[in-house]
Amino acid sequence: MRSPDPAPAIAAPDDHFRQQALARQNTLTKPPGSLGRLESLAADIAAQQGRAEPSVGRVHITVFAGDHGVCAEGVSAFPQAVTAQMVANFAAGGAAINVLARALGATLDVVNVGTVEPLPAMDGVREQRAGDGTANICREPAMDGPQLTRALAAGDQAAARAAAQACELFIGGEMGIGNTTAAAAVACALTGAAPADMVGRGTGVDDAGLARKRQAVQNALDRHGNDASPMTVLASLGGFEIAALAGAMLGCGHRRIPVLVDGFITSVAALAAVRHAPALRPWLHFSHRSAEAGHGAVLKALDADPLLDIGMRLGEGSGAAMAVPLLRLACELHNGMASFSDAGVSDGS
Amino acid sequence: MRSPDPAPAIAAPDDHFRQQALARQNTLTKPPGSLGRLESLAADIAAQQGRAEPSVGRVHITVFAGDHGVCAEGVSAFPQAVTAQMVANFAAGGAAINVLARALGATLDVVNVGTVEPLPAMDGVREQRAGDGTANICREPAMDGPQLTRALAAGDQAAARAAAQACELFIGGEMGIGNTTAAAAVACALTGAAPADMVGRGTGVDDAGLARKRQAVQNALDRHGNDASPMTVLASLGGFEIAALAGAMLGCGHRRIPVLVDGFITSVAALAAVRHAPALRPWLHFSHRSAEAGHGAVLKALDADPLLDIGMRLGEGSGAAMAVPLLRLACELHNGMASFSDAGVSDGS
Repeated sequence: MRSPDPAPAIAAPDDHFRQQALARQNTLTKPPGSLGRLESLAADIAAQQGRAEPSVGRVHITVFAGDHGVCAEGVSAFPQAVTAQMVANFAAGGAAINVLARALGATLDVVNVGTVEPLPAMDGVREQRAGDGTANICREPAMDGPQLTRALAAGDQAAARAAAQACELFIGGEMGIGNTTAAAAVACALTGAAPADMVGRGTGVDDAGLARKRQAVQNALDRHGNDASPMTVLASLGGFEIAALAGAMLGCGHRRIPVLVDGFITSVAALAAVRHAPALRPWLHFSHRSAEAGHGAVLKALDADPLLDIGMRLGEGSGAAMAVPLLRLACELHNGMASFSDAGVSDGS
Repeated sequence: MRSPDPAPAIAAPDDHFRQQALARQNTLTKPPGSLGRLESLAADIAAQQGRAEPSVGRVHITVFAGDHGVCAEGVSAFPQAVTAQMVANFAAGGAAINVLARALGATLDVVNVGTVEPLPAMDGVREQRAGDGTANICREPAMDGPQLTRALAAGDQAAARAAAQACELFIGGEMGIGNTTAAAAVACALTGAAPADMVGRGTGVDDAGLARKRQAVQNALDRHGNDASPMTVLASLGGFEIAALAGAMLGCGHRRIPVLVDGFITSVAALAAVRHAPALRPWLHFSHRSAEAGHGAVLKALDADPLLDIGMRLGEGSGAAMAVPLLRLACELHNGMASFSDAGVSDGS
């Protein structure tokens, strides 16, 4: 199977603004380099946004939800019904990402790309179903080509809505019982890692559940073999929400919107997207190092060093939301500090 | 010389509220433990504040400035006049900590505990001078006993002002050309580390400057010998702003105000304060791992694992300010998320 989905056109961030921002950093009233990563962060955002004064005031979050046929293999500590229950929790405003979006003043969309059962209409939840959950990847491909295309398009439409809001930073989140298994299978196929190194405890399976997860990923890999096309890997082993995240990131790159990547599952989607369209990579910021076992290997494959390492493993975009203030304050410092000459401070030269 | 300064009475945080908060975390709509360090952070703040719903809305920052006689040894990349120039920059609102305080809605005080020259009166700068800069620690004690007492009292008064504002989190910052040298000497005396392991480049000295710094710290240690009393170490090798930071932290512990500790110099002050009054330790949160060479050893001596590691080495309290949103969001999540039973979500049991 070969996916017909072409990579979108993605331009490079504007290096002129990056160089200008780095030069400005050296005029500010602080020892050169003493703001550490905040200096390059501000410069990267300036380049992405093509302006001298970067800002991430307007943040948009989209959480994609989908179900996974691989749950039949006993890979999760939670029943599959929790995906739909959590969508209702998002709609009611009670989940972690709701609390964080409110605190950050971010807009939040929830997109159902394929729960196993249809959901009742809920305010704030978009129905863009690519199917009734994926198929069991141990037995057949997770989805077919048209389903992949629909899931990618649901992601791209989220990027388009973000662009319509003049969004300055996009965060994608996910909810899907079983999706650490699917993500681990995708990551193994893309990186060549062994299931033992990529499969973790997800929501918290016990030792027997962990063994079932590893076996399920091995069985899925054995069945589908190695395929060099990242889009085919997504269709064979992934999930609707994982594909939608990839589509959203590609759509953000195309629209020059910087993306703050969340944890393990979102990083796997990012890896598939970057393998599909390498020009996407400079549009991605990485927020946190998840406690989920395989995240380190996926980050390494992306040459990514996240800002936070605080043991989170919740998903929903929550780790990315935690890092938003770091980006905001990096921009505030860049734009708001006095220069040595303005302040009459000796620069030591 | 023996300091007459007694350790203040410091009670333990209220473990009842800590346990209650940890129990609540396990009822929230997320896999248990999936918020990582944010869960224990919220519980620690609940225990410190003695309430079920922790909050760090009201943050108070005090920056202490002082000069250092050891600058005569050629230990800094910046001239000593920069301490006073930066105090003027704080008063004018142009420094990093001003930008961060505004962005966080935090109150900010600046206290001059001893620049080498008197300063003109400036709005927002309190004059509580313990002397005209410290003496050169390579030749004589940095300060005498009464000066130490005045510097500690300046810190305690900052804690009292914070308490008067019903402050929910205190940050101490510092400014003082030469103070990484003084802090390294204090840290060597308190931990037994060698100058080669504790002395870093500070504001950015070159290789020759680094060699002079190490020699200056060695000479200071040789002159003053080892003394078991942390307050005597502060007087012999420290600085007015380092002693004031120690006094502020002790005063916060006494008044049940949680403290968010900044980088290398503030951590050295924390180490001296904790050695003086071990009951202070549970009132301290550690914000970031500085790029300054000796910070890791000081954090290890404090059994501290900071929240951020983003290469900052600016001082002023700036690294602590960067971590404030993490504490705030940890509290928001703790207080604002729905429980499994409220949201009708299966908890997997």
